[in-house]
Amino acid sequence: RAFSCGVAMAKSKFEYVRSFETDDTCLRNCYIVVRLDGRNFHKFSEQHGFVKPNDERALALMRRSAGCVMEQLDDVCVAYGQSDEFSFVFKRSTNWFKRRASKLMTHVASQFSSSFVFFWGEYFTHQPLLYPPSFDGRVVLYPSNRNLRDYLSWRQADCHINNQYNTVFWTLVQKGGLSTTQAEERLKGTVAADKNEILFSEFNINYNAEPQLYRKGSTLIWDTAEEVTTKKVKPANQSEREVHVTRTRKKITTHHCDIIGSQFWEEHPDILESD
Amino acid sequence: RAFSCGVAMAKSKFEYVRSFETDDTCLRNCYIVVRLDGRNFHKFSEQHGFVKPNDERALALMRRSAGCVMEQLDDVCVAYGQSDEFSFVFKRSTNWFKRRASKLMTHVASQFSSSFVFFWGEYFTHQPLLYPPSFDGRVVLYPSNRNLRDYLSWRQADCHINNQYNTVFWTLVQKGGLSTTQAEERLKGTVAADKNEILFSEFNINYNAEPQLYRKGSTLIWDTAEEVTTKKVKPANQSEREVHVTRTRKKITTHHCDIIGSQFWEEHPDILESD
Amino acid sequence: RAFSCGVAMAKSKFEYVRSFETDDTCLRNCYIVVRLDGRNFHKFSEQHGFVKPNDERALALMRRSAGCVMEQLDDVCVAYGQSDEFSFVFKRSTNWFKRRASKLMTHVASQFSSSFVFFWGEYFTHQPLLYPPSFDGRVVLYPSNRNLRDYLSWRQADCHINNQYNTVFWTLVQKGGLSTTQAEERLKGTVAADKNEILFSEFNINYNAEPQLYRKGSTLIWDTAEEVTTKKVKPANQSEREVHVTRTRKKITTHHCDIIGSQFWEEHPDILESD
Amino acid sequence: RAFSCGVAMAKSKFEYVRSFETDDTCLRNCYIVVRLDGRNFHKFSEQHGFVKPNDERALALMRRSAGCVMEQLDDVCVAYGQSDEFSFVFKRSTNWFKRRASKLMTHVASQFSSSFVFFWGEYFTHQPLLYPPSFDGRVVLYPSNRNLRDYLSWRQADCHINNQYNTVFWTLVQKGGLSTTQAEERLKGTVAADKNEILFSEFNINYNAEPQLYRKGSTLIWDTAEEVTTKKVKPANQSEREVHVTRTRKKITTHHCDIIGSQFWEEHPDILESD
Repeated sequence: RAFSCGVAMAKSKFEYVRSFETDDTCLRNCYIVVRLDGRNFHKFSEQHGFVKPNDERALALMRRSAGCVMEQLDDVCVAYGQSDEFSFVFKRSTNWFKRRASKLMTHVASQFSSSFVFFWGEYFTHQPLLYPPSFDGRVVLYPSNRNLRDYLSWRQADCHINNQYNTVFWTLVQKGGLSTTQAEERLKGTVAADKNEILFSEFNINYNAEPQLYRKGSTLIWDTAEEVTTKKVKPANQSEREVHVTRTRKKITTHHCDIIGSQFWEEHPDILESD
Repeated sequence: RAFSCGVAMAKSKFEYVRSFETDDTCLRNCYIVVRLDGRNFHKFSEQHGFVKPNDERALALMRRSAGCVMEQLDDVCVAYGQSDEFSFVFKRSTNWFKRRASKLMTHVASQFSSSFVFFWGEYFTHQPLLYPPSFDGRVVLYPSNRNLRDYLSWRQADCHINNQYNTVFWTLVQKGGLSTTQAEERLKGTVAADKNEILFSEFNINYNAEPQLYRKGSTLIWDTAEEVTTKKVKPANQSEREVHVTRTRKKITTHHCDIIGSQFWEEHPDILESD
Repeated sequence: RAFSCGVAMAKSKFEYVRSFETDDTCLRNCYIVVRLDGRNFHKFSEQHGFVKPNDERALALMRRSAGCVMEQLDDVCVAYGQSDEFSFVFKRSTNWFKRRASKLMTHVASQFSSSFVFFWGEYFTHQPLLYPPSFDGRVVLYPSNRNLRDYLSWRQADCHINNQYNTVFWTLVQKGGLSTTQAEERLKGTVAADKNEILFSEFNINYNAEPQLYRKGSTLIWDTAEEVTTKKVKPANQSEREVHVTRTRKKITTHHCDIIGSQFWEEHPDILESD
Repeated sequence: RAFSCGVAMAKSKFEYVRSFETDDTCLRNCYIVVRLDGRNFHKFSEQHGFVKPNDERALALMRRSAGCVMEQLDDVCVAYGQSDEFSFVFKRSTNWFKRRASKLMTHVASQFSSSFVFFWGEYFTHQPLLYPPSFDGRVVLYPSNRNLRDYLSWRQADCHINNQYNTVFWTLVQKGGLSTTQAEERLKGTVAADKNEILFSEFNINYNAEPQLYRKGSTLIWDTAEEVTTKKVKPANQSEREVHVTRTRKKITTHHCDIIGSQFWEEHPDILESD
């Protein structure tokens, strides 16, 4: 009896430790970007036999996990992924978790990671997952539409540059018979044009005809879709009949197009809120 | 050709967006606590048929996932878990991720979540996981050993109070035949002593004899274990013989004891660094 | 000798304490507002015999001190003051003090305070300063022009409401013969229209004809002025003559107009940078 | 009438801008250090004819201003100054301004600056102040007594090193007839012992006999003093007589001693709170 009272009292005595928590509310009216990066994914991809330079299964699993995050947090207005990274953009007016940075980024990191493991088997049907992988995250704020678009452009430009390098590199290794060291040596100092030239003249590959998924990454947005369902109704004094019911439903769509130029943003004017 | 150059140049033009990242380095010489909490675990536990008030499988899976985090981040000097929460304490001198709060908490949240899904099947052998769960996290700093111990005491006192309530509540429901509403009503306004009395006089249950795991939660620390292996050696001009090799190895040990008093800390003087 | 060596070595031993400083860089592309508020100015104004409800000398001294801050920190694009408060708006692209919040706000607070004491005698010719006053400050960030203008509108609306109250209050006391307690009582529950009505019907004062300085506060901005100076030149083989040299010079101008509406901003399009 | 209503309503419409303020509460149970540094004091000291290497008047004015800050903020448990800088240490349990960093540092910067101007004339009797000077500030947190003492040691070691350099430098210039450039050249590469040797062998100056004020800086702490006052009392039926009344009063004392070693701290055990 005495002990239990003691613990209850003790709890209130210890509760002062809550006052050590600090407030990390994100500045209002800014876009909140949470970016995840795979940890040690170079090693992870080798251990799990990823196809080089792009593994369709891994990219699809990344998209699936990202979609899972968006469904949990529908204030994410756009997400962009490439390689082992994914960025989630919360709309500037969001009030999810009272805009607390720690809650937003840990929830995204957690949901993405558990989804990645949960859906692994759907994509890697013959390759068991050897151990639980991890992703780290960060939060960055962008005050204006221009800043946000420049952020996404930065990630897409990064995708392009890395993919181009990887495409040539692995072509030299896989088709050209070079060792990885030789391929690295060969590419030292080359600019973009040189790389395209190697691909074209030596391997008859037109880089710009490579799949958009590889060259542009994946952009996930919300779209409204009209969903038509058939329903049986039976009005009084009439015989039963079928009617078509149209419902507008939000659903996630995936795009592999350029998001640096303005066309994508003009075609989807609802993603961004005005400054 | 022109396009590729353009993208490379563009990337450097967009790179200014990196300067929007803010530094969230944790104050030095403070313990860094990352606490995770299950999101919507009330619903999750019902959907997955958790035994009430304590599900051995779930608690074991939580410990396993926590151990997985500690093995990845061995600067965690102590971790404490109860119910659907787990706290990870980084030693005050840690320099993991340069003490960046966002990296620390997202990595912990991610590794814990992917482990939870990864190891699910080992513990829930007959209950498939229906969807990927998620945990959110936060970071709190504690400047002194006293503050840190008070934090852990706060969590253990919370464990005690919740477990005592849940034990009586579910006993009233499961053995006493009350509805959940009736049980709630019955317990309104009771203090700790009353709850123990109900358990004892009506159900012949001595609360203090309930498993420590339920009443005290789980404390994970690093321990050094001497590992003796047998090795065959063959010195020159001698016949081969077996020798015993003793190696000191760090390994995680789990405790379900009281951590509010000083005994535990005196028995494990290496967990905390001096102020 | 030994001692000196010791100290030099010691210094490097102690220097680790610098790593406890945290980075408080303000998010880029946001307006940085530093607002100062007089501490205990109610008491200060009584001790120094301020005229109620508005002391011309005190308001002029506030403006002078604010101007002094702007001259030191010419990235302040607009400053707004009323009563014992002054807000300084740094342009969104400023890089002063690398946008470090602590540096910005302490420099503003320090410069304002030392100026306030330094120039006191110019305004309060017969009233010596009895002790050094103090102002506290804060930093707030605004991501968009709309947000910034709403901030300034908020302060001007506050000026209006306080000044209207004070005007009626002190008229009731000074001309109506009420005690301060009676005046307070009389105004309890009145709305703006009631206050204007009291002023007009009982004291024949038209509130809207009161000086703009009182009703609108003071807005300081940078203006470019053409400055014509006369210079003597003596071209070779010619006699000396005077020439007029026109130089464009930035100088601070003060306005007591409405800044809630758009007219002021349209007339001074250079204050704000586009979103 | 309509207008006034409009403004009152408008104010509430604009008030959302308050939610852009961020919380900058200092972590509990840490010492809060506010350090001020004179801005452009090299130039300021030349313009105001400061005696080199140490101007007694300026140092006394700095101490006086620091004392003024401590009297306003008596949770400052120790302040240390040298040259044109002063550090104020708030006790770890302080709750002044709810531990808000911005309030603490701006208040200190403001009070110090206005005091500096206010008291200028008392110290610089023949040298008018030419313009209002400014000080910038920062906040640093220290979690342990060791860290705090190391911080203060760092500043005192800095004082020693700078003062030793300046003493030799200005002796070479003022007594040795060197130009400032020559003196600089002469001292390049010398260590502490060399500097003392120059002073001793060339100018017969024993550096360690120089005033402690210059070599050790100024440490301000609170001391309790017994204050005896004489009071006349007249007990009933007795004749009036004088009694001595002893009151314990806190007052600031200034020390120019070593604070790197432990003696000072042992003699004043009340400055620091235990970890």
